[in-house]
Amino acid sequence: MAEMFSKILIANRGEVAVRVIRACKEMGIETVAVCSEADTDALHVEMADESYCIGGPLAKDSYLNIDAIITLAKEVGVKAIHPGYGMLSENPEFAKACENNGIVLIGPGAEVMEKMGEKERAREIAISSSVPVAPGSDILTDINDAENSAEKIGYPIILKARAGGGGKGIRVVREKNELSGAFSQVKKEAYNSFGDDGIFMEKYLENVKHVEVQILADRSGKVIVLGDRDCSVQRKNQKLIEECPAPVLSDETRIKMYEAAVRLASAVGYVTVGTIEFLVKNDDFYFMEMNTRLQVEHSVTEMVCGIDIVEWQIRTAAGIDIPFDQKDISNSRHAIECRICAEDSKNFRPSTGRVELLHIPGGVDVRFDSALYQNCEVTPFYDSMLGKLVVCSDTRDGAIRKMKCALSEFVLVGVENNREIHMRFMEDSKFLIGNYDTSICQKVLQAWN
Amino acid sequence: MAEMFSKILIANRGEVAVRVIRACKEMGIETVAVCSEADTDALHVEMADESYCIGGPLAKDSYLNIDAIITLAKEVGVKAIHPGYGMLSENPEFAKACENNGIVLIGPGAEVMEKMGEKERAREIAISSSVPVAPGSDILTDINDAENSAEKIGYPIILKARAGGGGKGIRVVREKNELSGAFSQVKKEAYNSFGDDGIFMEKYLENVKHVEVQILADRSGKVIVLGDRDCSVQRKNQKLIEECPAPVLSDETRIKMYEAAVRLASAVGYVTVGTIEFLVKNDDFYFMEMNTRLQVEHSVTEMVCGIDIVEWQIRTAAGIDIPFDQKDISNSRHAIECRICAEDSKNFRPSTGRVELLHIPGGVDVRFDSALYQNCEVTPFYDSMLGKLVVCSDTRDGAIRKMKCALSEFVLVGVENNREIHMRFMEDSKFLIGNYDTSICQKVLQAWN
Repeated sequence: MAEMFSKILIANRGEVAVRVIRACKEMGIETVAVCSEADTDALHVEMADESYCIGGPLAKDSYLNIDAIITLAKEVGVKAIHPGYGMLSENPEFAKACENNGIVLIGPGAEVMEKMGEKERAREIAISSSVPVAPGSDILTDINDAENSAEKIGYPIILKARAGGGGKGIRVVREKNELSGAFSQVKKEAYNSFGDDGIFMEKYLENVKHVEVQILADRSGKVIVLGDRDCSVQRKNQKLIEECPAPVLSDETRIKMYEAAVRLASAVGYVTVGTIEFLVKNDDFYFMEMNTRLQVEHSVTEMVCGIDIVEWQIRTAAGIDIPFDQKDISNSRHAIECRICAEDSKNFRPSTGRVELLHIPGGVDVRFDSALYQNCEVTPFYDSMLGKLVVCSDTRDGAIRKMKCALSEFVLVGVENNREIHMRFMEDSKFLIGNYDTSICQKVLQAWN
Repeated sequence: MAEMFSKILIANRGEVAVRVIRACKEMGIETVAVCSEADTDALHVEMADESYCIGGPLAKDSYLNIDAIITLAKEVGVKAIHPGYGMLSENPEFAKACENNGIVLIGPGAEVMEKMGEKERAREIAISSSVPVAPGSDILTDINDAENSAEKIGYPIILKARAGGGGKGIRVVREKNELSGAFSQVKKEAYNSFGDDGIFMEKYLENVKHVEVQILADRSGKVIVLGDRDCSVQRKNQKLIEECPAPVLSDETRIKMYEAAVRLASAVGYVTVGTIEFLVKNDDFYFMEMNTRLQVEHSVTEMVCGIDIVEWQIRTAAGIDIPFDQKDISNSRHAIECRICAEDSKNFRPSTGRVELLHIPGGVDVRFDSALYQNCEVTPFYDSMLGKLVVCSDTRDGAIRKMKCALSEFVLVGVENNREIHMRFMEDSKFLIGNYDTSICQKVLQAWN
């Protein structure tokens, strides 16, 4: 019988740190928080059993400071670290440092993280697992190779750094005469950002949906699909609204996509929770990438299937087998998440300030995951996401009405935020129909202006 | 096909008015709020589509003012009124006034309400439906009749006014020499309070659990049991903490109790939601009363069975049949509710004031139903309950740990409240074991002092 961790260090901040601490408290696990000098009054610091300031306000000095985190973990005697999302959650160096120090990093392990983190390697694994990928090339040797590949695939194409991430080392090319310049720019950016100038290309798919499959896997090889999410509402390649399940997807496509996700996870011996992202066009889907960590939007899935994903992430990381089966996973309800960000609704410019008035919506199946509190400071050092407003109902229409009610209850004075754009979406005819793609955000903004 | 109401008036205030408004918004039903002069800034007034002040701050001038409510309902053109709980929710006069004016009072109808509202008549219906009742008498003709009945039943006994309610017209008698005085006092109190001096007696059961069964019924005669709740944690005969399901109850007793509840509901042709309250001692249970309305503690049941009880109350009142069956009702999780009241933890003295700081707990399956907001006033005019903190988890132990976490997150400055006694319960060895009865509150207080 696998032994549960008695104490976990959370190497993150904000709502995800609070989220993980709550899960630990319910499981009877002690918690250690870390914070930067800008976060000494943060909610996660207040809630954890122990907390330590590990560096300056810039993330690189604190939440990304591998040495400081590992040193503290050893000092306070934790056997496991939860990385949250963002920060060090997909950093193979951190994963290796944990392993070298006998600490479990709650996730799939350094080797799997590295494999799936390199876009081109992940693509190869997908191909060998019979998971559809967009037409694409191998690593491009030079501009001639690139030109030949682009002719074969057909424009528009997208150049991608194999080590890419966070929107860097990626460029769309629509015509042959743009290719040469883009090729050398992406190579340079890739080298400067990741120390690796390997790049490849894929067919650029337009007017696609972004649909992802949530999986949970244990060390005995059981892989459960916890449903799918539509994440096509994005601004600046960042998700804004997510739904579970994806509103317009045929049963046949859904089943094929789930089977592909399970094949891929099994192929790499995946353990804990992970997300396989696909681009979907009509009834075709193409593997995009795998996120080897908790996703921000895991909460919509939790509300629909009734599984606490963070708890099961921790249990499977501790070696506990999943006691339930695929048939036990219900998918009959509908959940929507709106990311409440410290930014203006129209231009997405980040904002800061002190929370002068906060009123959080409530009710049946309404959840607001956040680290906000009355009078707290929103600083410029970190991601602009302040919280996630999530609702669940028996039907998609009911969920939309419930979200409108929740948004209308939500009050946040003192920090400019994007509540208003969410309300626009909940009243947008395309969103209401559900058959939208990644172009929807621009259309909603155009209609507004 | 039954037609859904397009607009509902909510004849109540506080958290239950907010609760009903949220359900209506999700269902696409317009809402009309009423308020007293003390509540013009209340949350339910802000949230409803329309709202009207109908009288002075005292409940009798506003929320209990049948004429004012019916007049307004007709003026604004509503076809249905939701009475909430308390206030006019079990008043047959109000139910009749609604019926006479062609308005649906969301509930079982005036006739059923009246039948089940008279304790002695409800007892008779229970007996004729083979639902166990505590040994007891018919209506007592005089003191001789009372003395003979008490000898037969055995002391202690409890005298009850047949029209009783709200803790009035009720007295425990432990010895023969107390009977005569108590008999005339209860008769007098019954006459003064209810204009009806009919009284009867029952065996007084000590060290019992208070367990209730939640039912949902439609006009076609389908009665679904939505599980049970233990409500034994009471102070001054008022519930303080509720759990779903009751923690210590054999499967056999539970099944028998559910069958009894269904028999009783069917016997009176019950429609919408209702609660049958039982006293439980070991494996025996005795019918106590039926509440022909929504209960405060309905939320624990909602979290366990995933049914929105208020929505189904409204649908069944509109004549819509229940599409699901008993086998669809899951009972595998555990929920706990702590009533957060404006009163001190030890003496239960009510308090008032302005909410200077409010921080509401969050997380997976944590719900806080309330009408509180930052800077609102808690006035002395109404019930002291400010909100209901409800959590749900896979196990009872997990729910208790989650409630401790939620209670520790909860901050309310400016109005004295009973958060502390709830934390005492969550750490009390008897509560943790789960095999407690209605004497537990006194024991927890003794241990504290």
